[in-house]
Amino acid sequence: MIDLRSDTVTRPTEGMRAAMARADVGDDVYGEDPTVRALEERVAGLLGHEAALFTPTGSMANVLAVGLLVAPGQEVLCEARAHIARAELGAHGAVSGVTMRTWSSPRGQVDVAVLADLFAPDLGPFFVRTAAISVENTHNFAGGAVLPLADLKALRAFADEHSVAVHLDGARLWNAHVATGVSLEEYGAVADVAAVCLSKGLGAPVGSLVVGPAALIAEARVRRKRLGGGMRQVGVLAAGGLYALDHHVDRLADDHAHARLLAEACGVDPAGVDTNIVAFDVADAPAYVAAAREAGVLVGAVGARTVRLVTHLDVSRADTAQAVAALARL
Amino acid sequence: MIDLRSDTVTRPTEGMRAAMARADVGDDVYGEDPTVRALEERVAGLLGHEAALFTPTGSMANVLAVGLLVAPGQEVLCEARAHIARAELGAHGAVSGVTMRTWSSPRGQVDVAVLADLFAPDLGPFFVRTAAISVENTHNFAGGAVLPLADLKALRAFADEHSVAVHLDGARLWNAHVATGVSLEEYGAVADVAAVCLSKGLGAPVGSLVVGPAALIAEARVRRKRLGGGMRQVGVLAAGGLYALDHHVDRLADDHAHARLLAEACGVDPAGVDTNIVAFDVADAPAYVAAAREAGVLVGAVGARTVRLVTHLDVSRADTAQAVAALARL
Amino acid sequence: MIDLRSDTVTRPTEGMRAAMARADVGDDVYGEDPTVRALEERVAGLLGHEAALFTPTGSMANVLAVGLLVAPGQEVLCEARAHIARAELGAHGAVSGVTMRTWSSPRGQVDVAVLADLFAPDLGPFFVRTAAISVENTHNFAGGAVLPLADLKALRAFADEHSVAVHLDGARLWNAHVATGVSLEEYGAVADVAAVCLSKGLGAPVGSLVVGPAALIAEARVRRKRLGGGMRQVGVLAAGGLYALDHHVDRLADDHAHARLLAEACGVDPAGVDTNIVAFDVADAPAYVAAAREAGVLVGAVGARTVRLVTHLDVSRADTAQAVAALARL
Amino acid sequence: MIDLRSDTVTRPTEGMRAAMARADVGDDVYGEDPTVRALEERVAGLLGHEAALFTPTGSMANVLAVGLLVAPGQEVLCEARAHIARAELGAHGAVSGVTMRTWSSPRGQVDVAVLADLFAPDLGPFFVRTAAISVENTHNFAGGAVLPLADLKALRAFADEHSVAVHLDGARLWNAHVATGVSLEEYGAVADVAAVCLSKGLGAPVGSLVVGPAALIAEARVRRKRLGGGMRQVGVLAAGGLYALDHHVDRLADDHAHARLLAEACGVDPAGVDTNIVAFDVADAPAYVAAAREAGVLVGAVGARTVRLVTHLDVSRADTAQAVAALARL
Repeated sequence: MIDLRSDTVTRPTEGMRAAMARADVGDDVYGEDPTVRALEERVAGLLGHEAALFTPTGSMANVLAVGLLVAPGQEVLCEARAHIARAELGAHGAVSGVTMRTWSSPRGQVDVAVLADLFAPDLGPFFVRTAAISVENTHNFAGGAVLPLADLKALRAFADEHSVAVHLDGARLWNAHVATGVSLEEYGAVADVAAVCLSKGLGAPVGSLVVGPAALIAEARVRRKRLGGGMRQVGVLAAGGLYALDHHVDRLADDHAHARLLAEACGVDPAGVDTNIVAFDVADAPAYVAAAREAGVLVGAVGARTVRLVTHLDVSRADTAQAVAALARL
Repeated sequence: MIDLRSDTVTRPTEGMRAAMARADVGDDVYGEDPTVRALEERVAGLLGHEAALFTPTGSMANVLAVGLLVAPGQEVLCEARAHIARAELGAHGAVSGVTMRTWSSPRGQVDVAVLADLFAPDLGPFFVRTAAISVENTHNFAGGAVLPLADLKALRAFADEHSVAVHLDGARLWNAHVATGVSLEEYGAVADVAAVCLSKGLGAPVGSLVVGPAALIAEARVRRKRLGGGMRQVGVLAAGGLYALDHHVDRLADDHAHARLLAEACGVDPAGVDTNIVAFDVADAPAYVAAAREAGVLVGAVGARTVRLVTHLDVSRADTAQAVAALARL
Repeated sequence: MIDLRSDTVTRPTEGMRAAMARADVGDDVYGEDPTVRALEERVAGLLGHEAALFTPTGSMANVLAVGLLVAPGQEVLCEARAHIARAELGAHGAVSGVTMRTWSSPRGQVDVAVLADLFAPDLGPFFVRTAAISVENTHNFAGGAVLPLADLKALRAFADEHSVAVHLDGARLWNAHVATGVSLEEYGAVADVAAVCLSKGLGAPVGSLVVGPAALIAEARVRRKRLGGGMRQVGVLAAGGLYALDHHVDRLADDHAHARLLAEACGVDPAGVDTNIVAFDVADAPAYVAAAREAGVLVGAVGARTVRLVTHLDVSRADTAQAVAALARL
Repeated sequence: MIDLRSDTVTRPTEGMRAAMARADVGDDVYGEDPTVRALEERVAGLLGHEAALFTPTGSMANVLAVGLLVAPGQEVLCEARAHIARAELGAHGAVSGVTMRTWSSPRGQVDVAVLADLFAPDLGPFFVRTAAISVENTHNFAGGAVLPLADLKALRAFADEHSVAVHLDGARLWNAHVATGVSLEEYGAVADVAAVCLSKGLGAPVGSLVVGPAALIAEARVRRKRLGGGMRQVGVLAAGGLYALDHHVDRLADDHAHARLLAEACGVDPAGVDTNIVAFDVADAPAYVAAAREAGVLVGAVGARTVRLVTHLDVSRADTAQAVAALARL
């Protein structure tokens, strides 16, 4: 079986396992795990922020990140198919008490003209106020689309002008970076608080980070414990993340190339495939998923009519060719 | 001062005060207030539903209504300027743990083609599911626009097809009914649960109702107490509501006529003013509010650039003429 | 039927109805109802606090009051049968996210030696911190017991020493005041934030108030709207409260005398009946309730084996004599 | 430095690291990690329950476990120093909306006579209902006390009689089992849902489990994802847990012996030290912590006057002797 359901399915490589096995560890609840600290400092530095916090999942990283910027009773704006809206089981409302309003854009992009209509200024104690705008880069359910840097800079200017915060869901920011050559720091400068993930394209088994100002990250540390995310000798996982940063960033270009090959096989214009995700509509997504499985390829349904293919570390060029052949027949 | 800030500012008439003063009452927490019961039965009947529950405010009615249909972690869809999204201080997230996604439409209307894109079916335990679609009729921040009945019927069909519930925020449903002649029952048939308000156009001092199936309304009664809305001899307020239903429904046509006169004075096409609200954009809403106050007219800012005028029971034809003269000079 | 279930069942008198009917009103959401303002100022003054806020119920007053003092994730300490713990449907957790720990005392009293064991200081970001201690005076489910002033003063000293706040649930503080002659201001001085109720012994149909520092009460105003408690021309209810303060405080002594008569009839030592509530244990509370109803007296079960009788404005001396005769036979 | 702050500080042994490095893994969000499945099945079996779910921390295990048994607005009863009350940052209220009432007992034990007073039956929609009773075995802040099996059996009978659930916080259930010889299954039979931890006495770096009926554990799986606890190739951690179950259970007897030696040195009766924790009161806990650090021993303050020492895998007999010498001088 070739597994194209998600880039979360990758297994750690031998090198990564070895790095994890020899990780220097301590009790991270007490802030004493040197490997976690090293990872947090490294990722904060890569994005040009003061501090970072390791979390068990990207969902928890996003819940903490948005919750730092938006108080209960305030709202965050995001694109209608954003991961925070669609794929975190409503935690932003159920856990953080945050309200959301959304705009729709075909590639998940942000447009300040749209924001200008949607944005809610502080009109006094009768109205909900927009506290943050969230963007996802790359945008998972928009087919791994990279958000144009110019749009992000315009967003930052809008946010500064209106004293509103920006949250960046950068679960796959590494893919955007490799696809465009824009530095992680340049992307990081767009956001007040960002989340990045190690267990998607980077291939670490577990782990994400929240990145932002030191004072907010200190508060996130307390809230992480409240949510049950304060793990102990978790340097064994952080070591996997550090290894991935050393070895698995540049190779994302291969995943992007493989995705374009798969796109062609599925009748999708490869020019629209920015990174490692191919999403397209079919008459009946569950039926397509079943047929692909018959043909030896696991794919995912992310909507009633939307199928998603994701390339990753465990899909080689040869696997891609085999999947291309199988899917082209569907 | 002529007060056009909101139709919530009306004071009870002498007749209404007399009705309230002689109301037969009991302890409504124990379900023993005959006037509350009579009001609940009457309003349920008007909308063609099984049962109704009196609440202190329209906000609580909506929070209960949406919360009956949408569990924590699920989502409700609504128009981006809906009262539940903009003007209930984020209670749906902060109190009920509900998530929201929104579409934008110029007159607050609902379009099943838009819904088809936005709607999230049950794709398993990784995704947020749409549990309800909410519409507001008339739509306050879309200038009191009446939602076309054909759109509402299409919504009902969509909801039935996709096994999703419909919430109707009918705070000003009386205005829609008077403006169009469509019966309250026909509007009520669109919704699984609706909220209606007595203290806006109808001129009662306090009170709203949640309307729906008996089993859900029984659950709402418990939740109302948890929110602190279980009042005791509240028949004194319900009597005001019953009086308003007897005396203040048909006269809403006057408010609508007054609103159209105000629209002309403000350069708004009266053809677009369906009911008792005129909303229009200016360069600087707070500045306009201040200038109108100088001219003897209280108006409201409901956005950074959006001004709102609302006619009601306490604004006579003569008051309207005076406001028209004052605002035309701005 | 003589209704001893609760002092919430009283109906407004003719005098009160007349006062309500002529109340001067405005839109209280905009802070423009003169009668509400007058009531808020009067009650704040009576308790010696800066400000007060009218709420639809005592439950909402308590939820707001505790929520002002205790952030989500912090805890309030209270007696195990406190109204906030037993009779507000879990709102402090479900709505405010507050945690509670409890001590048990036979008359609901507070003992600083017990507090010293229970109190949780700020030990850093791994432990829950006690943010407030709550006392109820009189204590409903401890049989309307008055908390000794010396205990309350010791509590205040303990709270000052440990930088923790005090919440006073004073739903029946008027009864304590009349029973002991201790001024409302002296009781008010014990608390950082207090709640008092108008619709219990005082006989108003609806209404409670939160009392405290102006800055906290301003925040309570916003949160009241979020909970759906921001009513409009609610001076019609506030007028009932003002009338009750003028006419129904001193007469609580009659209720207290009636309660002692009932106590004797039920085999309860009247010396232990401080105010208007008699609580005692029977083999089967629901069975006792049914038998009393047969005998023409409505009483309540507030535990599996605990029966409660409450005297009030609508129970005359003659009614009391009749109930005494009926209950003595059970 | 000899670290007696907590048994959470243990570092994985070489054998455990090797087992983790060769773990067979898959995407556990999709239920495809064979090592996690094996661990879940094994732990469920040990406690005699149908199913188990791996979680990143004991806090998350407890939050999920209590949340499965207690709906928002209902209450859980527990001892006043229970970990769920004191050391989970108020998550049960802040995240789950659950209310808590507490009893106090010197060794954390449960007494059905006390429960009979505290327990709140279902008295209708005006009162909070007790949905679960929680016990902690061993009881951390009661000095690692083992709850007597007879008390637990009486609790189970009480719970059955009153149709209320039992939650067992078994973070250190392994210690109770080793100290008493009572089987894990016998302890497991007391609880409807239990939580056990791998990263305390057992010495695994990360991980806990919720154990209970299959239907509840399936629901816990969804809620775990909402809280951000749904990790991917987490078999690398589960392998550490399996290794610990094979190698680190019986040796807990050593920790217990070491704790009794430390108790003597601190003037605590070793007969009261059931397992690996010694807790005692001093005049000023933070000052004692500082002095012990000077003497080369790290200890913890778990109250303003309460010091706690915890023995574990990384404290040898020689370390113990050294700590005994150092602490005896304080």
